[in-house]
Amino acid sequence: MSQSDAPARERVKQALRTQRIETPSWAYANSGTRFKVFPQEGVPRDPYEKIADAAVVHRLTGAAPTVALHIPWDRVDDYADLAKHATDLGMGLGAINSNVFQDPDYMLGSVTNPDPRVRRKATDHLLECVDIMDATGSRDLKLWFSDGTNYPGQDDIRARQDRLATALREVYDRLGPNQRILLEYKLFEPAFYTTDVPDWGTAYAHCLELGPKAQVVIDTGHHAPGTNIEFIVAFLLRVGKLGGFDFNSRFYADDDLMVGSADPFQLFRIMYEIVRGDALRPEAGIAFMLDQCHNIEPKIPAIIRSVLNVQEATAKALLVDAGALAAAQQAGDVLGANAALMDAYNSDVRPLLAELRADLGLDPDPMAAYARSGYFERIRAERAGGQQAGWGA
Amino acid sequence: MSQSDAPARERVKQALRTQRIETPSWAYANSGTRFKVFPQEGVPRDPYEKIADAAVVHRLTGAAPTVALHIPWDRVDDYADLAKHATDLGMGLGAINSNVFQDPDYMLGSVTNPDPRVRRKATDHLLECVDIMDATGSRDLKLWFSDGTNYPGQDDIRARQDRLATALREVYDRLGPNQRILLEYKLFEPAFYTTDVPDWGTAYAHCLELGPKAQVVIDTGHHAPGTNIEFIVAFLLRVGKLGGFDFNSRFYADDDLMVGSADPFQLFRIMYEIVRGDALRPEAGIAFMLDQCHNIEPKIPAIIRSVLNVQEATAKALLVDAGALAAAQQAGDVLGANAALMDAYNSDVRPLLAELRADLGLDPDPMAAYARSGYFERIRAERAGGQQAGWGA
Amino acid sequence: MSQSDAPARERVKQALRTQRIETPSWAYANSGTRFKVFPQEGVPRDPYEKIADAAVVHRLTGAAPTVALHIPWDRVDDYADLAKHATDLGMGLGAINSNVFQDPDYMLGSVTNPDPRVRRKATDHLLECVDIMDATGSRDLKLWFSDGTNYPGQDDIRARQDRLATALREVYDRLGPNQRILLEYKLFEPAFYTTDVPDWGTAYAHCLELGPKAQVVIDTGHHAPGTNIEFIVAFLLRVGKLGGFDFNSRFYADDDLMVGSADPFQLFRIMYEIVRGDALRPEAGIAFMLDQCHNIEPKIPAIIRSVLNVQEATAKALLVDAGALAAAQQAGDVLGANAALMDAYNSDVRPLLAELRADLGLDPDPMAAYARSGYFERIRAERAGGQQAGWGA
Amino acid sequence: MSQSDAPARERVKQALRTQRIETPSWAYANSGTRFKVFPQEGVPRDPYEKIADAAVVHRLTGAAPTVALHIPWDRVDDYADLAKHATDLGMGLGAINSNVFQDPDYMLGSVTNPDPRVRRKATDHLLECVDIMDATGSRDLKLWFSDGTNYPGQDDIRARQDRLATALREVYDRLGPNQRILLEYKLFEPAFYTTDVPDWGTAYAHCLELGPKAQVVIDTGHHAPGTNIEFIVAFLLRVGKLGGFDFNSRFYADDDLMVGSADPFQLFRIMYEIVRGDALRPEAGIAFMLDQCHNIEPKIPAIIRSVLNVQEATAKALLVDAGALAAAQQAGDVLGANAALMDAYNSDVRPLLAELRADLGLDPDPMAAYARSGYFERIRAERAGGQQAGWGA
Repeated sequence: MSQSDAPARERVKQALRTQRIETPSWAYANSGTRFKVFPQEGVPRDPYEKIADAAVVHRLTGAAPTVALHIPWDRVDDYADLAKHATDLGMGLGAINSNVFQDPDYMLGSVTNPDPRVRRKATDHLLECVDIMDATGSRDLKLWFSDGTNYPGQDDIRARQDRLATALREVYDRLGPNQRILLEYKLFEPAFYTTDVPDWGTAYAHCLELGPKAQVVIDTGHHAPGTNIEFIVAFLLRVGKLGGFDFNSRFYADDDLMVGSADPFQLFRIMYEIVRGDALRPEAGIAFMLDQCHNIEPKIPAIIRSVLNVQEATAKALLVDAGALAAAQQAGDVLGANAALMDAYNSDVRPLLAELRADLGLDPDPMAAYARSGYFERIRAERAGGQQAGWGA
Repeated sequence: MSQSDAPARERVKQALRTQRIETPSWAYANSGTRFKVFPQEGVPRDPYEKIADAAVVHRLTGAAPTVALHIPWDRVDDYADLAKHATDLGMGLGAINSNVFQDPDYMLGSVTNPDPRVRRKATDHLLECVDIMDATGSRDLKLWFSDGTNYPGQDDIRARQDRLATALREVYDRLGPNQRILLEYKLFEPAFYTTDVPDWGTAYAHCLELGPKAQVVIDTGHHAPGTNIEFIVAFLLRVGKLGGFDFNSRFYADDDLMVGSADPFQLFRIMYEIVRGDALRPEAGIAFMLDQCHNIEPKIPAIIRSVLNVQEATAKALLVDAGALAAAQQAGDVLGANAALMDAYNSDVRPLLAELRADLGLDPDPMAAYARSGYFERIRAERAGGQQAGWGA
Repeated sequence: MSQSDAPARERVKQALRTQRIETPSWAYANSGTRFKVFPQEGVPRDPYEKIADAAVVHRLTGAAPTVALHIPWDRVDDYADLAKHATDLGMGLGAINSNVFQDPDYMLGSVTNPDPRVRRKATDHLLECVDIMDATGSRDLKLWFSDGTNYPGQDDIRARQDRLATALREVYDRLGPNQRILLEYKLFEPAFYTTDVPDWGTAYAHCLELGPKAQVVIDTGHHAPGTNIEFIVAFLLRVGKLGGFDFNSRFYADDDLMVGSADPFQLFRIMYEIVRGDALRPEAGIAFMLDQCHNIEPKIPAIIRSVLNVQEATAKALLVDAGALAAAQQAGDVLGANAALMDAYNSDVRPLLAELRADLGLDPDPMAAYARSGYFERIRAERAGGQQAGWGA
Repeated sequence: MSQSDAPARERVKQALRTQRIETPSWAYANSGTRFKVFPQEGVPRDPYEKIADAAVVHRLTGAAPTVALHIPWDRVDDYADLAKHATDLGMGLGAINSNVFQDPDYMLGSVTNPDPRVRRKATDHLLECVDIMDATGSRDLKLWFSDGTNYPGQDDIRARQDRLATALREVYDRLGPNQRILLEYKLFEPAFYTTDVPDWGTAYAHCLELGPKAQVVIDTGHHAPGTNIEFIVAFLLRVGKLGGFDFNSRFYADDDLMVGSADPFQLFRIMYEIVRGDALRPEAGIAFMLDQCHNIEPKIPAIIRSVLNVQEATAKALLVDAGALAAAQQAGDVLGANAALMDAYNSDVRPLLAELRADLGLDPDPMAAYARSGYFERIRAERAGGQQAGWGA
């Protein structure tokens, strides 16, 4: 379909209107590499301030109404109060992200640790996260395990899978009726020889064994070089096991750059598979989440930019002329089919998105609106004292 | 265990005595890259001569009693006669490898082709391979699909999975009681954008859906950079879905070099997971096959060397002191556990293997024995005329 | 600058008007992978027909006035006659590509072969290529060496460098006053352990040693995963050693897909460095060449598409607002600087290019114009008999 | 040569006797990933304690007589006193490693920062390091720049090279007669889009421009996947520009694991090129340094193991029968040449090294000797209080 085709534009805008992108509380806080965390001005000092920043992103984009929490970084005494704070700001609390990688006990693993005491402690933390979900009303428990080994022989690869399965089962059985596990995989880091959930196949196999409330989450930065991520998207959608995304982008390893910044064409191809699999609408249950680190760029505008990048890729995916594409594919017309896809990708969808924002009563240019808003100047002043939030706090 | 420990040496030798490595008929023939196939002297001209060469490898190593066939490269009028030829030489026929990548009809795919006529043709070829298995008594049907796409949009990723599943089901249902499918995966080449079975997860999911007679085969050269292959071995063994190996080695892509030549430590780690999973003994049903190309080195000695490399890696794996390793692992002794593994790897097992060969009445040095045998001089003379076998013949 | 800025549009069009993209004779012929070459209809049978096809590409795009030759694939008795044939079709002959990888003698290397006789033969071929350049009036001798080894120890890495330097020196000294060497590098394939010119550093070091008439050529498909190609472009421009490009694209290894099809953003970044280094204008001496394989798609339209892809990336690069970018860079405004670049990339330059073509009296849509032209139908009929050209012919 | 050949054994032992491996002060301190630094017991609290630990490694291995310092982590008031402390422990101070990546000013780069004030500050730090070298008598200034960018467009790639060249020149001109620059390169991290010295080619080009006192240092963990490191070793030795190594090992990115633990065959191949290039003897001026992180394993034994791994790889490299290898290479005997190399690699050199240690009056098993020594129990008790050293201290 052509962009100049008015009904098509309306259809695309209608689909975009329903898209929800969840931003992560930790992306508003300081982050860095093992070499250095460069502190920035105005960074939140607690979960309340993180949610306040997330609310700004939503206010400007209209597309980011929930914020994911990370436990214990976002631990508070009263989650109901935190949820009310979010509601007051027009926000909701999203996925609960567990953390079993920062306690000294987890040096050799959490739920896969050879020591049963440590496994118990780690599993208890995961169960605590479900308790928090009950309090926040969150649907998704996101599980990422840093577990693995650094040296051949360090531990038994297969025994660690048994331990993993045991812990996952216990947590799965604790889930409420509207809750689910999103199991994340990652090729490497912080473990450097084996990772206990290194790829989508491992996550898929465990989710299949667990049952319908366990699904795979794809972090776009967690693959081996050359991996075709949109293939995984298509495959998991086909078998009903795609739970969502941790969006970010990478040139090398798990760079955690702004989504769409390293390979915007890849992001488009991913979103095309989402559209093709009819998985964009909220009822499809795919969680579109960001998981990024803004090490050197200001955090709030970086997150706004990321939301826009996802929207632009989605808009292009929606522009693909499905009929022309299918006809060319069926005819074995390699260049024609490729051209049908590229025609959408090469379109400039920014005017259409500006129009959508105007329809919604938003500023057509969220980046400029943020710059003009004075919000940064305010938080820089207000948050000058105290302890900035980061990965360790 | 120490090599100087006599009962341990006997135990290791006993295990090695049972190991069977299958060599591929096509490795005796000419091969090359897309740039050039360099013909060599003495290369077989038909399947009978390939089997004769394989018999030499077995006669000298005592460890390679079967030869895999590739259809149509090894198509003959009378498979019973071919099997008799093998038996007469002390050999058996092994896995049947299908070929759905060289007919002009397969340019855009075989069983996943958008054209149903081509899919039918490809599936029929796979069924013909089962007919051949009936004739040869082969247990394993090895399926590798070159199917995929070169350009984004070229075809529908998900529809191709549906087509693949349909074809696999039809072939699976045709299998006899003692036959099975070994489904191979490969990251890329000859397809350069998507491959329809690109990774172990995809192969595993299809095999699971098919049933107990479908298992995954790991080609050691078919992974993305950084993939931990021994993890996949351990994982598939745990879930009962490892069917076998296509051994070779690689520095870059699918280099198809002699197994163990690029990363002998990796081969050792793979064989260690086999030993640890008690999967070395023939009853475990793991097919240890070579799948290599000897583009620039003489073929028969290259294959002998490859068999020796697998044996040496296996011997080292068997030397691992399982008790010491488990104790160190359980104690969280990272360096101690690593050392238990490395102690075996750093051993020189060549004397032990020479001793084993002497026990079996073989020459302790198969490479030297081949050089002395005059076999090459004979085939060079005898096979001077005619059409040499290659990938296309 | 904005696209709607009329003087800017004129400036961009003016720059695009000077861009020259050379197409390779072999891309019009059959190609494939080691698994299969799928023949296509209408493929040229000799260099004359290849040039005729290249002339069609130029006639439709106005941007591809020269065609590169490959010796011996394009060997003819009378190069003056071939050059006249080109001129008659409005074309010129471009770079001469040597081939020292297909003679049986080159199995273990050409100019780096341990055997001095083979080295002599290979060097003589390179000298013959300079003779041909004298006849065709070509400026550039493109040297790609497939030389390398497959196994550790196979040959002496350092001695091979000495042999390489010797051959390069002899060829360099034979160059005429307006001739130069373009030295290509490649990570791997067909050699799988070492390649004698594996990276830009090696090519650069040799070119530096040779002198001003030796420059590095970047094949965009010849790098290790993760390599930042635009960095190399910027670096070589800075030191005056960039000679040109072999354009194509890749997802995995040396896929040789249509340039811009796998990562259009990368192509844009490369062209941005060209623009930033003021190297687009012909006097800068950068050769913009395609080097691709159209294994499954029709060749002529694939080459037209490739030329358009380079033009579109160039147009976007020219649209970058240099002043805004420099200001943001100097201010340390990470997001602002990135946005200045992305603003150009996200533009749809197809209307501007259509306008340029109209200015030049060309059809604004070369792909459609080709489809309508009837050329394919004609060559399919005319070239039905005879031996199709390919890599081996 | 055979190990059983007594003169050969003596020759190998003689060569090993001269080998010097420098250990890095920071490897004795705490380290980790961006996710967590797990503190260990007994870790040094200042440079004096680090040197004390390094002295233990040397006392047990006889091969690690110097320790590299990192400024500012090892900044002290009186470097002469620190040097005397080392001497008293039988140690020397080795390379001075600069640090221009941890000051908040360096968020967007140090010597390549767009801000001239920051560049001045960074260059001044490098000059301060030369002052320290004057005080410590160190020969080598190791320069690693984390400089780079995270996003396309963030800064001007080429201008950063100009700034880099300017800073390097100033430092080079400050070097004393017996001092040199070792310039390190790294593909990525902490920068994720461009790195200003990403590969050996860039380091080589700058060193060449600087002059004879600038050489390239190879960190074995700093390459793109698939890079052939021994090729780089051979190449840089040939052109006289190899300055030394930062040894460690990797499976994925810059894992900083114990050298030889991930790919012992690669380490052997590297050491073979050193032996083949006659660069093992100290007069050749190659600095063999470790640069590792012991995130989860105890530090001192990990470093002992690393020293042993380098020694074992070196011993195997020395065992290669150079005559047999050269003969096979010259004859084009691919398998024979490979076998000549592998024969040495497959040898168990541990008995020879134990013999060498006995000759030197050392315990034949340094790992066991350390475990028995009680040193760890002592430092665990003595260093219970205070602030442990780490990357940030």
